[in-house]
Amino acid sequence: MSSFEVVSQSMSFAGPLPLRSGAALSDYSLAYETYGTLNADRSNAVLVCHALNASHHLAGVYAGQPKSEGWWDNMIGPGKPLDTDRFFVIGVNNLGSCFGSTGPMHTDPATGRVYGADFPVVTVEDWVDAQALLLDALGIDALAAVMGGSLGGMQALSWTLQYPQRVRHAVVVASAPNLTAENIAFNEVARRAIVTDPDFHGGHFYEQGVIPKRGLRIARMIGHITYLSDDVMNEKFGRELRSAVEGELAGTAYRYSTQDVEFQIESYLRYQGDKFSEYFDANTYLLITRALDYFDPAREHGGSLTEAFAKATAKFLLVSFTTDWRFSPARSRELVKALLDNRRSVSYAEIDAPHGHDAFLLDDVRYMGVVRSYFERVAAELTA
Amino acid sequence: MSSFEVVSQSMSFAGPLPLRSGAALSDYSLAYETYGTLNADRSNAVLVCHALNASHHLAGVYAGQPKSEGWWDNMIGPGKPLDTDRFFVIGVNNLGSCFGSTGPMHTDPATGRVYGADFPVVTVEDWVDAQALLLDALGIDALAAVMGGSLGGMQALSWTLQYPQRVRHAVVVASAPNLTAENIAFNEVARRAIVTDPDFHGGHFYEQGVIPKRGLRIARMIGHITYLSDDVMNEKFGRELRSAVEGELAGTAYRYSTQDVEFQIESYLRYQGDKFSEYFDANTYLLITRALDYFDPAREHGGSLTEAFAKATAKFLLVSFTTDWRFSPARSRELVKALLDNRRSVSYAEIDAPHGHDAFLLDDVRYMGVVRSYFERVAAELTA
Repeated sequence: MSSFEVVSQSMSFAGPLPLRSGAALSDYSLAYETYGTLNADRSNAVLVCHALNASHHLAGVYAGQPKSEGWWDNMIGPGKPLDTDRFFVIGVNNLGSCFGSTGPMHTDPATGRVYGADFPVVTVEDWVDAQALLLDALGIDALAAVMGGSLGGMQALSWTLQYPQRVRHAVVVASAPNLTAENIAFNEVARRAIVTDPDFHGGHFYEQGVIPKRGLRIARMIGHITYLSDDVMNEKFGRELRSAVEGELAGTAYRYSTQDVEFQIESYLRYQGDKFSEYFDANTYLLITRALDYFDPAREHGGSLTEAFAKATAKFLLVSFTTDWRFSPARSRELVKALLDNRRSVSYAEIDAPHGHDAFLLDDVRYMGVVRSYFERVAAELTA
Repeated sequence: MSSFEVVSQSMSFAGPLPLRSGAALSDYSLAYETYGTLNADRSNAVLVCHALNASHHLAGVYAGQPKSEGWWDNMIGPGKPLDTDRFFVIGVNNLGSCFGSTGPMHTDPATGRVYGADFPVVTVEDWVDAQALLLDALGIDALAAVMGGSLGGMQALSWTLQYPQRVRHAVVVASAPNLTAENIAFNEVARRAIVTDPDFHGGHFYEQGVIPKRGLRIARMIGHITYLSDDVMNEKFGRELRSAVEGELAGTAYRYSTQDVEFQIESYLRYQGDKFSEYFDANTYLLITRALDYFDPAREHGGSLTEAFAKATAKFLLVSFTTDWRFSPARSRELVKALLDNRRSVSYAEIDAPHGHDAFLLDDVRYMGVVRSYFERVAAELTA
C-alpha cells in the first residue's frame, strides 16, 4: 500500500510532431507524473515507459483516493527498487492512449471532429520522440535510465537507438526485439473482434453514443490468456467449477450448459473482459497493439539486430521470466547477444517465476532484488 | 490424392438415447461411412472418431467430386497405415455436429421447431454410447481398434472405459485426459465471441435468416493459433508483410493501418476465419467445445487417472508431438502412467515434429510408421 500522493500533470505542445506513418500531430498534450526531486545537475531522471493498458500513473495515490495506486507501485517509490528518494522518476502517457494524453477520443483541431479511427497510427519510435520533447520541456537533457516492461521495454530499447546520447542506462523487462507471428496473430484476433463489433461503427462510435464492448471483452480475454502461464492458470483455476451459492450442487457437478459459466477460469475471464470494456478505448486498443506489431529495430538493418544496436551506447539490464510464453527468455537472449556483439555492457537476469508475462508486474524477491541492485549502481555513478 | 470412392450413409434411431446431462434424444440419425470389408468373424472393424471440425468422411472421395478427400485420407485407405485392405473402417459423425448426424439445425420432433440452442448438451460419453448403438446395428460386437486424434482421441479413451469388453486396441493421438484451464479458456473466448455476436440471437438465428459469422470467424482464428506451434508460424509466416500486387511498396513497407491486413499471418487467419464461417454451425461449435471441456474421466475418481483406467482392458498406442502446446506430450505421458499403473500394455511415441497440434493430421514419416507398425500388429492378432 502506497502512502505518498502524486498529482497528474499535463503539458501541451503546438507541434507538429512528425510520425513514422508520414502523418503529423498538432496541438497535442501529454499527461505525465513525476516522483522524487530532480537534482541540481539534472542527472538523476529516470523515465518509465508503460505497456498496453497502463498509463503515466506509475506509483503513489491521488489525494483522497486511497485505492488509486499506480500500476508499478511495488517497484517505484521511496525506498523501493527504483527509489524516488534518489531518482526523479517520470511517467508519461503515450499518444493515442485513453488516459490523459491526446488520443482518439479527443478533437482533431484540423476538423473540429473527434479523431476516432482517424487518429494517426503511432509507433514506438513516435512515442519516444514525444517523450523526448517532454524531457526537453522539463529541462532534462540526459536520463540516468529509461525503464519499461513488455511494450514499455520496447520503448526503452528504442530510446537507446533514437537518442543514444541521452540515455545512460536502459532497464528492459519481459520484452522482445519484435513480435513473433504468434504474437501478431493474437493481436490481430483481438483487433478483429473489436472492428467487427457492430458498435464499432468504423471507429466512429463516440458520435453514435455506443461502445464496442463485445469486441473489447473478447480482446481482453485473449490478452489475459497470453499474460498468464499454463502453470499458474492450472494452479489458480485448474478445472474448478464456479463456486456459487445458489444450490447444493454448486461447485460439485456440471450444469451442462454451453452458455453459462461452468468453470472458474470462465468466470475470471468474463470478469476481466467486462471490467476492461468499461474503461478502455477501442481505438486505443487498435493503435497500441499495432505499435507492438510494428516495432522491429532490426528491420531496417536487413534483420540484423546486431547492426541495429551498433548505435546504442547505454548500459543495459535485461530481465526475463522463465514461464513468459508471450515474450519468452529466448527473445531477451536475442537482445543480449546483439548487445554483446557490439561489446555493450549488459546484465541479464532470467527469473524462475511461475506467473508468465504478468510476472513483470508482480513481487518476486529475486526480480526486485536484481532491479534494486542495478539502480544502486546507477545511483552510485551519479554521486561518483 | 485418393482414388477410391466412398458413399455417405445414414442410420436412424428411435431412441430415446439418454444423455449425461439428464436429457435424451429421440428420432435421431447418425451419418457414417465405411471403408474396406468386414471379415467373416466380424473381427476386423476399426472405429475412427473425429475431432472438432471434422466428420465421418475420413478418407476417399465422393463420386464426381475429385477434391472431396476425407480429412484423414493420408492415414486411412488401401495400403495406408490404417489399411482398408485389411480392416473394415468406420467413421461416424457425432451428434450435435453439422455434417449429417442430428444436430442443432435439425427439427426437434418434440416441438416441431429447429433445435438451435435447445439441442441438448452432448458429452464424449454420449457420443460413444451413440457410436456403440451404431455398431450394434451394423452387427459388430467388438472393435479390433478404436482410433482418434485430439477430441477423437478422447472418444477412443472413453470407449476403453465405457465398453472395455468391446475394444481390443485404442490408438490415441495428440490427446489428453482432460483440458487444462488454458485449454478451457481458449474455448470460452471462442464461445463468447459467437454468443455475443448480435446475429446469434440466443442460438435461434436460423429462423432470423442470419448466421453469426463474426463470432465464428474469431472462434476459428483463435483455434488456428492454438493448432500451430510458434515455430511453424515463424517459419511459415514470420513477420512477412502481405504480398500484394497493387503497388511498388507492396510487401516491403508498412502501410500504417490498424484495420487493413499488414502481415501475412493476418491474411492467413482472416482467410481461415472467413472460410470456416461459411460452413460451420455456431451451435455445433458451442456443443463440441463444451464436450471437450467436460471430458475428464478421472473426475469421478477423485482426480485419479489411475483409478479411472482400472477398468480399461484394451491395449494402447499413444502418440504425441513435441511442439503441440495445446495437448502437450506431458498430457499423453499422464495417460501412459495411468495405464502402466494398471499394468496395461502401452506403446508410446513422442514424435519430434514442428507443426504443433496440427501434426496429427499431417504426413510425418515416423508418425505414419509408428501407426502402420501398430496396425500390422493388430492385423496379425486377427489372423493368428
